[in-house]
Amino acid sequence: MRTYLDCISCFVRQALDASRMVTTDAAVHERVVRETLRLAVEMRFDRSPPWMAQQIHRLLREATGNPDPYREAKRRSNELALRLYPRLEEQVRAADDSFTTALGLAIAGNVIDFGCRSRIDDDDVQDAIADALNTSLEPNAVADLRRAVGEASDILYLADNAGEIVFDRLLIGELPRERVTLVVRGSPVINDATREDAQIAGLDALVPVIDNGSDAPGTILGTCSPAFRDRFAQSDLVIAKGQGNYETLSGQDAPIVFLFKAKCPVIAQDVGCAVGALVVSLNVAKPPGSS
Amino acid sequence: MRTYLDCISCFVRQALDASRMVTTDAAVHERVVRETLRLAVEMRFDRSPPWMAQQIHRLLREATGNPDPYREAKRRSNELALRLYPRLEEQVRAADDSFTTALGLAIAGNVIDFGCRSRIDDDDVQDAIADALNTSLEPNAVADLRRAVGEASDILYLADNAGEIVFDRLLIGELPRERVTLVVRGSPVINDATREDAQIAGLDALVPVIDNGSDAPGTILGTCSPAFRDRFAQSDLVIAKGQGNYETLSGQDAPIVFLFKAKCPVIAQDVGCAVGALVVSLNVAKPPGSS
Repeated sequence: MRTYLDCISCFVRQALDASRMVTTDAAVHERVVRETLRLAVEMRFDRSPPWMAQQIHRLLREATGNPDPYREAKRRSNELALRLYPRLEEQVRAADDSFTTALGLAIAGNVIDFGCRSRIDDDDVQDAIADALNTSLEPNAVADLRRAVGEASDILYLADNAGEIVFDRLLIGELPRERVTLVVRGSPVINDATREDAQIAGLDALVPVIDNGSDAPGTILGTCSPAFRDRFAQSDLVIAKGQGNYETLSGQDAPIVFLFKAKCPVIAQDVGCAVGALVVSLNVAKPPGSS
Repeated sequence: MRTYLDCISCFVRQALDASRMVTTDAAVHERVVRETLRLAVEMRFDRSPPWMAQQIHRLLREATGNPDPYREAKRRSNELALRLYPRLEEQVRAADDSFTTALGLAIAGNVIDFGCRSRIDDDDVQDAIADALNTSLEPNAVADLRRAVGEASDILYLADNAGEIVFDRLLIGELPRERVTLVVRGSPVINDATREDAQIAGLDALVPVIDNGSDAPGTILGTCSPAFRDRFAQSDLVIAKGQGNYETLSGQDAPIVFLFKAKCPVIAQDVGCAVGALVVSLNVAKPPGSS
């Protein structure tokens, strides 16, 4: 997805919110806002919005001297999700259609996104879970995903955020695990999941975990490692969690299913859904004869 | 009031909203947003926010070749206010305290501010009127204003927006008219009132009308005419309508009463009130012995 003019004011707001979240030093707040403006003046709008977020968070880490400013926020999100996990796992097991229930809950977990909001409390997560359990996902999209999963021999599951990754475990439990590889970010950015979060979620015991070698809050292939790019090219199904992965990969000519909660009006408009919607969006080629 | 870091993303959003309001030309939208970013990179934060709005709207007028892009919006606001006027005048006449009722309604009219929102409909104005009639203004502030008016020999009434200026007529009707001069902007900026709006509101028949010689959406004395600056210095009471006049004059060592509806969270915090509050704020020296 390209950057829209509407994204620019949001970059500036996010730069300030993030600065305030990670330090009380007003000089850092001003420096990060000014540098964000400087980048935005010349920004090519064919870049996706996470490119700017990548620059902002590099700046923040450099200005604060803190390589992982969201570490404590990630720890709390993982803890909250692990506390909720047993009950959610029970609900998936008891459901008539455990795949669809796990899918909805994995998308609900995408509410834990500090790229969109600088504060997410327990109630936001509980509300997202209740919403997911009461909302029907688009049945054709779910059927297409189920078929694509059944046919794929090499599934890459691109994780998004800490906390959310615990919810992903519900869905990964419904996939053919021997054909799934989990992908995390190469190094910390915002509250995005890294290898440590996959371990905390217990996912490294279930599936192979690799990282993409990048510090972008999304999957900007040009900043990923050659090893990941090869793996991405070989895979015959990518399950991409979160807005950042949608923004960075939606233009790719590859078999990708995007799963996220549409939290931003620009993305919702790009997808063609309402803000708050649980999105299952496939650019997977359909079998001949299907509608 | 200085510019806060929170104002910066709002400048960019306002630049885009205003561009979209005055033209469908996407190249103009992008140019105005980029130029706003360029100005913001180097902006001195001891300037008040209307300085940036002045630059943005100069750019917009230049880029569109339209010297008064809000002309039609101003016409509609004046028409709406004139349609409501007879009933409001009746309510002031029937009130126990006509001064306070007129004051509340004049502040309610400040909802007609295209600097804060790019769309204001009839319901917004009706709601603001109902709110003003149901809300008690701070009694001490009203008493201080009443006393200051009684003691002043030369009152400058700084108008704010088209449409709103019709509401100002209610309050000006309660003032000692022979001591009041109405001030409008020197040339069009956003929907701010100019001499034409004062005439449409019928105010030129009641009080002398002068303009400040400036195209700022506020009163930036450095960009006002020398004649206006002299007049401002001589006056012993300034009644300043609207957020823009508050933002540009709140630091002045002069007898000023600010009247506005707090529509922006940064201004509300600067004043110490809730968003939506009807503000009567005096920096008029109080008589000795008063609390």
